[in-house]
Amino acid sequence: MKKLLNSVDTMLVEALRGFEAAHPDIVEINEDPAYIKRKGQPKPGKVALISGGGSGHEPLHGGFVGFGMLDAACPGQVFTSPTPDQMAAAAGAVDGGAGILWIVKNYAGDIMNFEMAAELVDNSSTVVTNDDAAVENSTWTQGRRGVAGTMIVEKIVGAAAESGADLKACTALGERVNERTRSMGVALTSCTVPAAGKPTFDLPEDEIEMGVGIHGEPGRRRIKLASADAIAEELMGPILSELELPGGAPVLLHVNGFGGTPLMELYLMYGAARRLVEDRGATVARALVGNFTTSLDMAGCSMTVTRLDDEMMKLWDAPVHTAALRWGC
Amino acid sequence: MKKLLNSVDTMLVEALRGFEAAHPDIVEINEDPAYIKRKGQPKPGKVALISGGGSGHEPLHGGFVGFGMLDAACPGQVFTSPTPDQMAAAAGAVDGGAGILWIVKNYAGDIMNFEMAAELVDNSSTVVTNDDAAVENSTWTQGRRGVAGTMIVEKIVGAAAESGADLKACTALGERVNERTRSMGVALTSCTVPAAGKPTFDLPEDEIEMGVGIHGEPGRRRIKLASADAIAEELMGPILSELELPGGAPVLLHVNGFGGTPLMELYLMYGAARRLVEDRGATVARALVGNFTTSLDMAGCSMTVTRLDDEMMKLWDAPVHTAALRWGC
Repeated sequence: MKKLLNSVDTMLVEALRGFEAAHPDIVEINEDPAYIKRKGQPKPGKVALISGGGSGHEPLHGGFVGFGMLDAACPGQVFTSPTPDQMAAAAGAVDGGAGILWIVKNYAGDIMNFEMAAELVDNSSTVVTNDDAAVENSTWTQGRRGVAGTMIVEKIVGAAAESGADLKACTALGERVNERTRSMGVALTSCTVPAAGKPTFDLPEDEIEMGVGIHGEPGRRRIKLASADAIAEELMGPILSELELPGGAPVLLHVNGFGGTPLMELYLMYGAARRLVEDRGATVARALVGNFTTSLDMAGCSMTVTRLDDEMMKLWDAPVHTAALRWGC
Repeated sequence: MKKLLNSVDTMLVEALRGFEAAHPDIVEINEDPAYIKRKGQPKPGKVALISGGGSGHEPLHGGFVGFGMLDAACPGQVFTSPTPDQMAAAAGAVDGGAGILWIVKNYAGDIMNFEMAAELVDNSSTVVTNDDAAVENSTWTQGRRGVAGTMIVEKIVGAAAESGADLKACTALGERVNERTRSMGVALTSCTVPAAGKPTFDLPEDEIEMGVGIHGEPGRRRIKLASADAIAEELMGPILSELELPGGAPVLLHVNGFGGTPLMELYLMYGAARRLVEDRGATVARALVGNFTTSLDMAGCSMTVTRLDDEMMKLWDAPVHTAALRWGC
């Protein structure tokens, strides 16, 4: 295993310290228990958004802490759920008196730990994301997995919370965005978890994993390496068939890199995905291309489509100032 | 070779089309000859900045086309210089009547082609970047190589041009930023050029290449895989010894990923590099961490330090609106 680290045990806290030092105007970290919060005091009367999950998906979630998006993020060890004490401490630090909204990717460990945290905190509500169209159940999940669509929920609900939406409205909006979002990914290589020291799964030199999860969980099937267009078609098929998309429906199309795939390839895949959306009669109204929900060093990408409405589009466009997403301020 | 593409021959143009489709508010592309330009008409009286070079380093340079940075970028095939006709056509498209500034990384092919383009264009000037502290001469270079410091030149001079600096002032500023900038990189793995279909160089499982170039050119030496702190020390040594850094001198510290290294590791390396700058008595006034000057799918990173002055800091902070760098607008 070749990684830039001093020791597997200190890797997470060293990365968090580096992150705070690089973005001192945006975030503060707490080391024990570990969480990343917005710099400064909570905004009175604002619903506080908290997400989290295993590390290794950066910039998700810490890179989305800041104005217009998350109030805090709780990082677990690589691909391991954070614990309720982290979540409760983060809630205490960012509570503005209007309640806490937990945004949780649908994995058994995350669900269990966030549920326990919710019991420790007054006035909280939860949105569970489950946008992965690839599989019905998976290694660590009952029901669909939460993947790259999660950051779209975080952005849109973050903007609503910033403009004063209450906890009930934020919860309903998060559920609406999640329902209107589907994703699917492909792995060209495995990732390597530092503590394991070797690739998570074996993938022959001429095969790819269609529908892979963001921890390298199995997907739908393995196929021989195919053309970009053929891969895009297989990824977008389930996404487009599960979403209701009347003619001209505006969508956000997000092509997400898993960490080891060059931007050139992601833009090429974006072009291929976009043609498929247009062939279906929908309109790509917003686009996002890059590494946002990664799987360490995995090569591959995922595609996500969110069917927008006017409110969601306005909230997507609203100002955001985080380490990984920034516009309008 | 596992890559997301339809054919090696069409990869570049397909990626350019995807890039334009993803950022229609920022850029326009011309396919033949190939260049990326800012959306809309040139701003009369503004010096036009044009850069370019082989593809495979994305977001450099196309991701830096837009308000406050480049006016155009000319992409060659992967790791291959663009040609003078691309550069001359780009100049014709973005000329605002105040001259063209070519920003050229110091590689023999780029230098030759940009020189030929300059002969075809009236009133142009050139800044050659050569920030790589690793080697004096290299495979494709007389003198030091131009690497990740190039985007710092592009940002700072871009802001000056936006605020009305003339061609002479932009040239002098570009040379000043370049002189005050040094970089050095490390490869943990090779990259794979699509047309070659196999890794550019062999690197044993327990070795890393210190001082590697952004095309996988040899660096200073191969060493056994070392700790993050030891690697940071070896990278920052030449950088800090070549820069004049009086006590408290403000610097921009940029940790750049080569494409295949997770953000967690880049932030960890940022923390390590920052401590070394501070040990030297300088002050990290600005930071940039992420994949900005990549080498396709190479794992590894580079570190860049620019000694700032008040003018440079103000220009770094000035608004920028490109696909890959955006703040203040």
